Amino acid sequence: MEQKKTNNRAVMAQAESESAVLQPSRRSFLRGSAIAAGAAATVGATGGAALAAGNPKHLPPNVPPWSMELGDSVTAEPYGIPSQYEKNVHRRTVPWLTPTGESSISFTPIQDLHGIITPNGLHFERHHGGFPHIPKEDFRLIVHGMLENERMYTMQDIMRLPQVSRIHFVECPANSGAEWRGAQMDKLQFTHGMVSCCEWTGVLVKTLMEELGVKSGAKWVLAEGADAAGMSRSIPIEKLGDDCILAYAQNGEMLRPEQGYPLRLIVPGFEGNMNVKWIRRLEFGDQPWHHREETSKYTDTMEDGSSRRFTWFMDAKSVITSPCPEYPMLGKGYHQIRGLAWSGMGKIKGVDISVDGGKNWMPARLEGQVLDKSLTRFVFDWEWNGQEAMLQSRCYDEKGNVQPTIDQLREVRGTWSIYHNNSIHTWLVQKSGEVLNVQVSGK
Amino acid sequence: MEQKKTNNRAVMAQAESESAVLQPSRRSFLRGSAIAAGAAATVGATGGAALAAGNPKHLPPNVPPWSMELGDSVTAEPYGIPSQYEKNVHRRTVPWLTPTGESSISFTPIQDLHGIITPNGLHFERHHGGFPHIPKEDFRLIVHGMLENERMYTMQDIMRLPQVSRIHFVECPANSGAEWRGAQMDKLQFTHGMVSCCEWTGVLVKTLMEELGVKSGAKWVLAEGADAAGMSRSIPIEKLGDDCILAYAQNGEMLRPEQGYPLRLIVPGFEGNMNVKWIRRLEFGDQPWHHREETSKYTDTMEDGSSRRFTWFMDAKSVITSPCPEYPMLGKGYHQIRGLAWSGMGKIKGVDISVDGGKNWMPARLEGQVLDKSLTRFVFDWEWNGQEAMLQSRCYDEKGNVQPTIDQLREVRGTWSIYHNNSIHTWLVQKSGEVLNVQVSGK
Repeated sequence: MEQKKTNNRAVMAQAESESAVLQPSRRSFLRGSAIAAGAAATVGATGGAALAAGNPKHLPPNVPPWSMELGDSVTAEPYGIPSQYEKNVHRRTVPWLTPTGESSISFTPIQDLHGIITPNGLHFERHHGGFPHIPKEDFRLIVHGMLENERMYTMQDIMRLPQVSRIHFVECPANSGAEWRGAQMDKLQFTHGMVSCCEWTGVLVKTLMEELGVKSGAKWVLAEGADAAGMSRSIPIEKLGDDCILAYAQNGEMLRPEQGYPLRLIVPGFEGNMNVKWIRRLEFGDQPWHHREETSKYTDTMEDGSSRRFTWFMDAKSVITSPCPEYPMLGKGYHQIRGLAWSGMGKIKGVDISVDGGKNWMPARLEGQVLDKSLTRFVFDWEWNGQEAMLQSRCYDEKGNVQPTIDQLREVRGTWSIYHNNSIHTWLVQKSGEVLNVQVSGK
Repeated sequence: MEQKKTNNRAVMAQAESESAVLQPSRRSFLRGSAIAAGAAATVGATGGAALAAGNPKHLPPNVPPWSMELGDSVTAEPYGIPSQYEKNVHRRTVPWLTPTGESSISFTPIQDLHGIITPNGLHFERHHGGFPHIPKEDFRLIVHGMLENERMYTMQDIMRLPQVSRIHFVECPANSGAEWRGAQMDKLQFTHGMVSCCEWTGVLVKTLMEELGVKSGAKWVLAEGADAAGMSRSIPIEKLGDDCILAYAQNGEMLRPEQGYPLRLIVPGFEGNMNVKWIRRLEFGDQPWHHREETSKYTDTMEDGSSRRFTWFMDAKSVITSPCPEYPMLGKGYHQIRGLAWSGMGKIKGVDISVDGGKNWMPARLEGQVLDKSLTRFVFDWEWNGQEAMLQSRCYDEKGNVQPTIDQLREVRGTWSIYHNNSIHTWLVQKSGEVLNVQVSGK
């Protein structure tokens, strides 16, 4: 923290609004804190009687130092950054995951997030050739192939077109992939941190298709990135002409470099890698391209050695974000179980909670906005009796898709896959309050 | 930009997906850019024929340098920052506005924003004694006065309570204040940049009131900040017990220091200063406190010298954000007029657009989500004929409130006020495409 000036005006202003309160010493303030902290550790959060334990009448007057001196000037930070006390909240990588950082992943700290929006500085990353820094003025998008008219667009062209904004999640299909065969990552950030959710703004691809005129017979579109990997995927034209967005903004401001600045594709509900970043080309054709990222990667090896391909949809999935390994239980009594649910097929319809490893289920409440192909927040009021508990969440979407158990998933998909693990996740709450990642399997 | 390594794997990957495309020199790439830029300046954005002007068949093959070398590693930035090409997008202050930066304002660059979310790094600021940096562990909220039980809360206590998330705007009542008597700021950022909109997460004050028990006769609540100014306002208990939130998160992450970390009040639809930041005290009483910020400040002087007090509600208001002084017209033809509308009384019901200074009006389309007491995005498809035009937007909300002209506002409120100017704003589009801030008055 910077050194602060003392200022008579501020102290006088303080006195004006605090006239009945004595000025305490730093020591009495700290004493006050300690008493309050002690109270907080023992009283529950519900019930009027318990709440009286922290009654301020029994505590010394409490004017902390930051109320006694001027704070920072408005001009200190033109582009704001988080509090110095939240330095622990950031994306994290796993060094053994890939040979180089340019082809790696950073995980969103979803254990620290609230609501449904992921701030831009915390959106997970997955790159195939590192992330470039592209001057907006030099960027071009080529739209060509089976069209009446082909065109090269500048960013000015794109940004003049009719604009839409939609809140959607983006999830890497490898999210929770390490859990397929029972490897248990010891943090929520690593089990489920490859999903994020933003308000995306741009132009519907449909708008470009209507202007350029799609030739009959066109059925597929290749979306290609301008990164060093030339990341590319074949997308069915029905999806592209439905709700796909050429997005230039996330959460109000222009895309971050690692999220595709200045232009990316948003393919709502489809696996993350199809939401091609730094998109430079859309080619219209009559068949898929069978590129690297839809053959050697992003296919799922089945028990008989065959491969599932074009597994685009992200299935109905949920996870409890509080408590979790990073934020254990603080004590017996009231705890609001919180979590996130999402489906690439539509809106979340409901979430059930189990505290006994899936034997009994109770409905959670969906909190805040429930949007199409978006993260949805759920909450569940729980009184913890201090005994071991196995917490699970199970979501279902408006299309009738239900999140499966890991046994149900393995029954259909075997044990070789790393992509599209949407199975029910289990947190073991120990008597100490600690929370462990465990798998509940009948086999 | 950092220096890049060349990498054989990346080049090979590039060749694989780009096999039919020749590798151009840097010079041919730049030539391609110039041609495309020329085309962009002359072709309209609608109509297939015009769109063919940028046909890539007539341009040299186009593989830019950033597709030829590895980008940055995933680990480069644990907490992400905007593109180096967006350095111009930040909050701005006006040095003559207040004697010191600690009691000043920074304006959101709403001319650069899309959708309805304001990213946390760009949320406008208004401080009365600078912004403090408060350790979360040492923070306390005292809730006392006419209650069955009083209590001091730690942040752990607050964060355990049932959680809600809501998207709401916060606007300083002085937003557009300089325009009251006809002073015209020359930038949208300064005419309307004291409004922002975030997803706020926290606990409803109602939850605390139910737990502590409000005594009969309690009618008002004093909300007091822990900043050096002891910023405080009297709030009617009906509002506080309705939709007010003790918020600890904005857009998913913990509040920024300048937005009240670790806890602030959100009073949806009420003037910004009532959304008390760094809130340390809620006192329940039977009458208002008549503190500094509701007597000498945040009252409106009328024509007869009397003062309007407790002018809490932010009225129905809108402004066109594209075009604007910062982003003039790029040329004749299609332009999507875009803007923001909001009301402290409820949802925006509609927005009308005039291109002739208010003589004729046409309905705009509300784009994306339309939420209670939230910014709402509107769009209007316009063909500009290249002649002078006077653009206006006029919104109305679900309660029947209609945004007034400046004449209508002055008729009722006189010319002494600086707060609560929600009048219709006019941009004069000149033949050159430049956009000027003007006032249209019948007087």
